[in-house]
Amino acid sequence: MNLSNISNIIGRVLLVCAILMLPCVIVALIYKEDALISFLIPISLMVITGLMLIKISKPDSRFFFAKDGLIAVALSWIVLSIFGALPLYISGTTASYVDALFETVSGFTTTGATIYTNVEILPKSILFWRSFTHWIGGMGVLVFLLAVLPKTEMSMMHILKAESPGPKVGKLVSKTRSSARILYGIYMTMTVILIVLLLLGGMPLFDSVVNAFATAGTGGFGILNTSIAGYNSLYCEIVIGVFMLLFGINFNLFYLVIIGQFGRALKSEELRTYLAIIISAILLIAWDISSIYESFGESLRYSFFQVSSIITTTGFATADFNLWPSFSKIILLLLMFIGSCAGSTGGGIKIARIVIIAKNVKNTLKKVISPRAVTSVSLDSEIVDEKTVKTVSTYLCAYVFIICVSTLALSLDRYNGVTSFSAVMACFNNIGPGLNEVGPVGNFSGFSPFSKIVLIFDMLFGRLEIFPMMTLFSLSAWKKN
Amino acid sequence: MNLSNISNIIGRVLLVCAILMLPCVIVALIYKEDALISFLIPISLMVITGLMLIKISKPDSRFFFAKDGLIAVALSWIVLSIFGALPLYISGTTASYVDALFETVSGFTTTGATIYTNVEILPKSILFWRSFTHWIGGMGVLVFLLAVLPKTEMSMMHILKAESPGPKVGKLVSKTRSSARILYGIYMTMTVILIVLLLLGGMPLFDSVVNAFATAGTGGFGILNTSIAGYNSLYCEIVIGVFMLLFGINFNLFYLVIIGQFGRALKSEELRTYLAIIISAILLIAWDISSIYESFGESLRYSFFQVSSIITTTGFATADFNLWPSFSKIILLLLMFIGSCAGSTGGGIKIARIVIIAKNVKNTLKKVISPRAVTSVSLDSEIVDEKTVKTVSTYLCAYVFIICVSTLALSLDRYNGVTSFSAVMACFNNIGPGLNEVGPVGNFSGFSPFSKIVLIFDMLFGRLEIFPMMTLFSLSAWKKN
Repeated sequence: MNLSNISNIIGRVLLVCAILMLPCVIVALIYKEDALISFLIPISLMVITGLMLIKISKPDSRFFFAKDGLIAVALSWIVLSIFGALPLYISGTTASYVDALFETVSGFTTTGATIYTNVEILPKSILFWRSFTHWIGGMGVLVFLLAVLPKTEMSMMHILKAESPGPKVGKLVSKTRSSARILYGIYMTMTVILIVLLLLGGMPLFDSVVNAFATAGTGGFGILNTSIAGYNSLYCEIVIGVFMLLFGINFNLFYLVIIGQFGRALKSEELRTYLAIIISAILLIAWDISSIYESFGESLRYSFFQVSSIITTTGFATADFNLWPSFSKIILLLLMFIGSCAGSTGGGIKIARIVIIAKNVKNTLKKVISPRAVTSVSLDSEIVDEKTVKTVSTYLCAYVFIICVSTLALSLDRYNGVTSFSAVMACFNNIGPGLNEVGPVGNFSGFSPFSKIVLIFDMLFGRLEIFPMMTLFSLSAWKKN
Repeated sequence: MNLSNISNIIGRVLLVCAILMLPCVIVALIYKEDALISFLIPISLMVITGLMLIKISKPDSRFFFAKDGLIAVALSWIVLSIFGALPLYISGTTASYVDALFETVSGFTTTGATIYTNVEILPKSILFWRSFTHWIGGMGVLVFLLAVLPKTEMSMMHILKAESPGPKVGKLVSKTRSSARILYGIYMTMTVILIVLLLLGGMPLFDSVVNAFATAGTGGFGILNTSIAGYNSLYCEIVIGVFMLLFGINFNLFYLVIIGQFGRALKSEELRTYLAIIISAILLIAWDISSIYESFGESLRYSFFQVSSIITTTGFATADFNLWPSFSKIILLLLMFIGSCAGSTGGGIKIARIVIIAKNVKNTLKKVISPRAVTSVSLDSEIVDEKTVKTVSTYLCAYVFIICVSTLALSLDRYNGVTSFSAVMACFNNIGPGLNEVGPVGNFSGFSPFSKIVLIFDMLFGRLEIFPMMTLFSLSAWKKN
């Protein structure tokens, strides 16, 4: 492993994070809040630590391997969260540092699970930072680093690979740095469009901005205790609902649209599967909950928003789905598993993986039936290589394993099995709300510090898609090259 | 596909089953029960249908392929269950034919989930048949067929492969037929020893025999409403507890012991993992429930029996684990997943698969860390070929998929999510009791006929390990060769 390269990257990440915290200072100044100091201290600490880390490192791109990329990404996220939690802790809005860390990791990983029982009393600058962490974490802080770096001295493909969600990373253009810029360009443009649309709907500027951050990152932190339901506006619900779905689509497809290959984007198997699942889920749930609401239109409205929020792993709510019938709850739980498209800001297993797994099961069955049959898995008419198929199957195995172990650890806490299991699902898949005590109207404040730490790791494992975090804990990765 | 070969096999299976039903006639005669006629009718029907099927078939072993084996096994089990359910239905002990079918499939697949709310009022011959189906299904009816056939004209390895549990079938000796005889020899001997031990403990003859059948097949149908707890005998609990564990071990290991290779048997990685999991689970649960019981000894007693019953997927109970804390319940739920060893009479994913999956995850991680590393999965110092590893990973994917779809289907019923999910887990893993309404003191009578049919398929998918049943539903398998 190349510690020098890694500390160089972490140093840069800290400097970037210090810059990203500056808008919060401005918000604190505008609203004349005491929380100002809670941002100035961490910014200074990050600048000092960042410069020190860069100074002691002697980066050499010739010795930057895949595992270095994995470890750099995992460590960056952990260091980022440790510093990012300081404003919440220093401002005295959280009961303990573990709570502040939970909230920050929940922000960066775009989970949206909160330990606050009342968010409406928080200072505006803290609310801004909370939602901004969603926006930063959504596209990835290292991808951002790649985009803003003056020149990419190091072989950064490993980093893009480790931080981007999905079974394989397709570079948009030949240069990693240009890819990162295009991604962030699309991301920013869509966020701005969303802010404007929300403003047009009569939402106040501050609310529009923070809700747009939470939607773009598919995070889900709200600034009203009643989440999006609090605005009581069908227009805002539809706008946010549609944009959640848009941010759950592979960003490569938006790039295809921009360069005029609209037809190719529409042919994407992942997109088609994504839309098919969404439409089926909306209709099935709307039918199942129609007895609860006054009209089918109303149940369609609630079904649409909740499905869009859960499959994209955002976690906004306009209805307490805890009160819905079992059938709808199980569908939502399955959507939590599935998640959004690869290369989007959403979490979960990802549609592309589900498609590959389903095709692989079909192929294996073919092999069992006719042992001499020659089979291969293809996606968008391109053959997925054996290694990717194998990694995807293994990914699901590791995924199941982590859920089992975490649920077991959480069951030592005072809650029942459903709460423990759904809390793990909600954090590991970066969704936010689960069922029962951690449902849309509940929160995570009641868990013990031990459970919160388990959930913090689940969120990081989920956002970084297991392997980078596992590498960090793997002894063999720490050996010298 | 070779329909002629398959109908020949099914014909023979029906004749074998007619013979296996004869002991029930004797029991009915001894206890002078009216249920006698309920056995004579199906026996006659099976003999007639069996002879007809054999007559119209022209078996040709040259054209017997893997998929024919898979379909023959799947169809045999379905036909067997359809006829095997007749005694329960004709005797009027079940409310509907679906109920009788559920109970019979639950018997043959060694699940042990029951629709009877009061088993103590059932005729002895019916109780005998119920438990005997466990014993028949435990080792497999087609393996039995192989053992008793005068000569194996067909390439029967495909059948042994399709019916035996676990990722790969090791033939004990070079001849399939001898393997089948050895397996049944060990199975019968151990059953007889268990009967004798139970008799020595003061259990009545009839009870000893039927409980031994249910233990040997790791089925779990009891003849008291309170299951094994009703005997209130520490001796019987220990004997049955230990024998459940024995029947959950790969029978190949018993063969190794018989031929004097005791050391090699003890070195089995699967056996060691099995024992390690059992001991950890017993201790963790005993610690967790110690506040409920009077002494640690008592909680150890209940922990031992329940762990032994659940990991071997038997389903006997001496305590209502529904009332235990979450931590213990989650451990039991995980044991349901894991199941017993490959090549035993137990269900679940099987220890061998779990070991292969865990090693494969570790290897994939190694590959991610160092892309050029050469890795392979080995079990008992032998390399597991790539194809088996791939099939095992895919198996888990299909397994998760079936659980999701079945739980969704069951959630349309009136029960809550935990009941639906645990009912699927209990049936698919061939355990018997689940949680809540289908817990150790509950039963499956309250489900709708639709849910019962879903669960019937789950039990068959679970017992035959997915692929044979999937082949049956695969269009391509039905094409002519």
